Amino acid sequence: MIDKVIERIDSQEHQNVQRLFEFLRIPSISTDPKAKGDMYKAAEWIKSFFDTLKLPSRIIETNGQPTVFAEAPAGDPNAPTVLIYGHFDVQPAGDEKLWNSPPFEPAIRDGAIFARGSADDKGQIFAHMCALESWITAHGKPPVNVKFLIEGEEEIGSPNISALIENEKTNLACDYVVLSDTPKFSENKPAITAGTKGMVYKEIIMKGPKQDLHSGSFGGTVANPANELAKLLGCLKDENGKVTIPGFYDDARALTDEEKAAFAELPFDENDYLNSLGSPELDGEVGFSTLERRWARPTLDVNGLISGFTGDGASTIVPAKAVAKLSMRIVPDQNPKKISELFDRAVESLAPDTVRTRVETYACAAPYLVPLDSPGMKAASHAVEAGFGDRPFYIREGGTLPILALFKSILDADSLLIGLCSPNCNAHGPNEFFHVADLQRGAKSSAHFLKLLAEINK
Amino acid sequence: MIDKVIERIDSQEHQNVQRLFEFLRIPSISTDPKAKGDMYKAAEWIKSFFDTLKLPSRIIETNGQPTVFAEAPAGDPNAPTVLIYGHFDVQPAGDEKLWNSPPFEPAIRDGAIFARGSADDKGQIFAHMCALESWITAHGKPPVNVKFLIEGEEEIGSPNISALIENEKTNLACDYVVLSDTPKFSENKPAITAGTKGMVYKEIIMKGPKQDLHSGSFGGTVANPANELAKLLGCLKDENGKVTIPGFYDDARALTDEEKAAFAELPFDENDYLNSLGSPELDGEVGFSTLERRWARPTLDVNGLISGFTGDGASTIVPAKAVAKLSMRIVPDQNPKKISELFDRAVESLAPDTVRTRVETYACAAPYLVPLDSPGMKAASHAVEAGFGDRPFYIREGGTLPILALFKSILDADSLLIGLCSPNCNAHGPNEFFHVADLQRGAKSSAHFLKLLAEINK
Repeated sequence: MIDKVIERIDSQEHQNVQRLFEFLRIPSISTDPKAKGDMYKAAEWIKSFFDTLKLPSRIIETNGQPTVFAEAPAGDPNAPTVLIYGHFDVQPAGDEKLWNSPPFEPAIRDGAIFARGSADDKGQIFAHMCALESWITAHGKPPVNVKFLIEGEEEIGSPNISALIENEKTNLACDYVVLSDTPKFSENKPAITAGTKGMVYKEIIMKGPKQDLHSGSFGGTVANPANELAKLLGCLKDENGKVTIPGFYDDARALTDEEKAAFAELPFDENDYLNSLGSPELDGEVGFSTLERRWARPTLDVNGLISGFTGDGASTIVPAKAVAKLSMRIVPDQNPKKISELFDRAVESLAPDTVRTRVETYACAAPYLVPLDSPGMKAASHAVEAGFGDRPFYIREGGTLPILALFKSILDADSLLIGLCSPNCNAHGPNEFFHVADLQRGAKSSAHFLKLLAEINK
Repeated sequence: MIDKVIERIDSQEHQNVQRLFEFLRIPSISTDPKAKGDMYKAAEWIKSFFDTLKLPSRIIETNGQPTVFAEAPAGDPNAPTVLIYGHFDVQPAGDEKLWNSPPFEPAIRDGAIFARGSADDKGQIFAHMCALESWITAHGKPPVNVKFLIEGEEEIGSPNISALIENEKTNLACDYVVLSDTPKFSENKPAITAGTKGMVYKEIIMKGPKQDLHSGSFGGTVANPANELAKLLGCLKDENGKVTIPGFYDDARALTDEEKAAFAELPFDENDYLNSLGSPELDGEVGFSTLERRWARPTLDVNGLISGFTGDGASTIVPAKAVAKLSMRIVPDQNPKKISELFDRAVESLAPDTVRTRVETYACAAPYLVPLDSPGMKAASHAVEAGFGDRPFYIREGGTLPILALFKSILDADSLLIGLCSPNCNAHGPNEFFHVADLQRGAKSSAHFLKLLAEINK
């Protein structure tokens, strides 16, 4: 029965790539207020995909960006239900000069599709859409009830998804959630991600003089917000790479010896990893291996800085204002609200009275750990093995999927994170890519998963 | 004899303002590579002013921006010679939204001309041009030999003026240099500036990963250049506002008790000063008064910061690069080359090996102190008293006029710094202004100075 589905996926490769190209051409950048129209364009594009399959779907409005919901019933009242979640919003392209081809005009080089969103997450969610399409074409319906929830605010921290899942609780009811928004272990090794970090995203705004001042005439008489902000940021980590915010590590769950051993056994080459990033050396919290820091230790990174004169050449001013954006990635059992408050308190105590300091919170999401021994996890593992021809590793991810905790608390469903893209796919950076082969293998894995999940029930 | 000159200045007020408007409309931003054409337009505008007076003038090419030179002989072989120096280049406008009227479309409000360059330095140099014009109209020639040197690179640290003064040494020969590129003491009190700070301008470029990385997937495994740059900048000053660069203060000349007493006697209201700047409180090096810090203590200010994502909202990256621009203002007898080297050494020792750090030097200029007891200084003081109707204070300036040391060493001429603009004129910031009354009083002061300098010789 699955053979016809797999054949269909194979025969559709060219069409799948062409349709993904259409999807990738829409610059659906959720953080950009000017991209509102493109957000709807992307949502409509997805809806029309399900319309073509004659499946019921709708665009759900939120206080922010739209979300698409679709259903494909198995026609069997006892069949289990899987909810496939993804997002159609993308990160900004950044400096377009750093892209080898335009971020929103997909190009294939060496078998990979280069475009913003190709890996994160349009290409990955589209692999599941292709799997469903192939089941329906081959057999008229999928072997389990399949639902799709594809949102438009993941890259800005999903501010409205909690309310949406709560409102649509009955429609979203499911046994498992499947997500592909994480990478493989390596170029040649598939992976299922069993844990993710949470995130608290902050912006610190420091204001000094009411306008930029001549740094000669006025320098040395009032605090310079750029100097003060730098000093404050510099205090947030110590010389061992530890975050200095009081209480920050209190609830961070330590890795067990078994977990440490499992990480250490993975074929991870630090030199290859370093070379792929291009930094002069690896660095981070003292006392932990690179994989431990990546997957299971909390971090604090400045994401952006801006103040004063940033053009070419020299302009001599005391800036009126300095702004930093920064994100903390947190691990089980750190609570994002608590970390957010500890951060605010630390900034308040570090910021001098000589400037006016304000902190904005952009995202506040919980970490998540997935049980490894559920029937769904086993089905996912076998499905990936069938789709990729290789047994997946269980890994963790430093990135954040705030939605996992919501699915658990509202729908009482565990999430299965099947990674389809390369770990160095340049998500969020220039030249993001997704291999055509991974699109196809992902679709096959998804097709197998539906079959294996149906068999659990029998 | 002077009466006719002063009458002419009075009668020309409207014309002077209109001509200054023409000058201010030219966006001659020396740091902007795209403004090359406007730099020549401004130089030609000045030249045509002297052409109209039938005075010999020429545009001198340099390796950078052009300079204008003009001469008005007194017709008396024994007459002293004054070289009036100024600059026609201006700072960038910065954020135009902060201007109440466009920076390059002059507007008069409450008797003040608002435009970029109105005070720094087009309006001030133009006051001297009006004085010469009035002498020539009234008497056919000035009472002393007058030369003008108006350059186009002051705002970028005058990289080519040293070579130019050396090359044109004979043509520039003079007894005194007069400059108006400093402010009055207060709105109602004129001033002659007897000392200026030097400046060393640096850019620090830190590079980490070869491109922006996802802060979740990769954070905590390589150094973040934005965090590292902030930490480094934060280390450059201690909790007492002292610069921590080893050796930085070694050669800084301490103020004498007399100088401290003279500063303390000036009617300087710290509250008014603070209110004019708009910061929550005054701040700076512990152990020195506000005027001491402003005029006679070295400072270090970050002028600009840029790294990573700086748009609206949140983007979660480890930036590939972070850049800071910063300036140190230095005092007698700090040597700019030595300070520059000490800075580079300090950055080298503070920068971690986990990022690649580079330092660029944009300016390196010496501080200057002017003798108070020369005949020229006395003539300047009386001239300002005649022009403004009030005796000027002797003050100092935290800004930098690198050229003063060059005039002394190459031409053996002392500089007389006659301030015409308001101390809160917003030079380098938005809404820069210059009072029409100060344009006129400045022109009269200049006219008187020429007469008083001629009388010294008799």
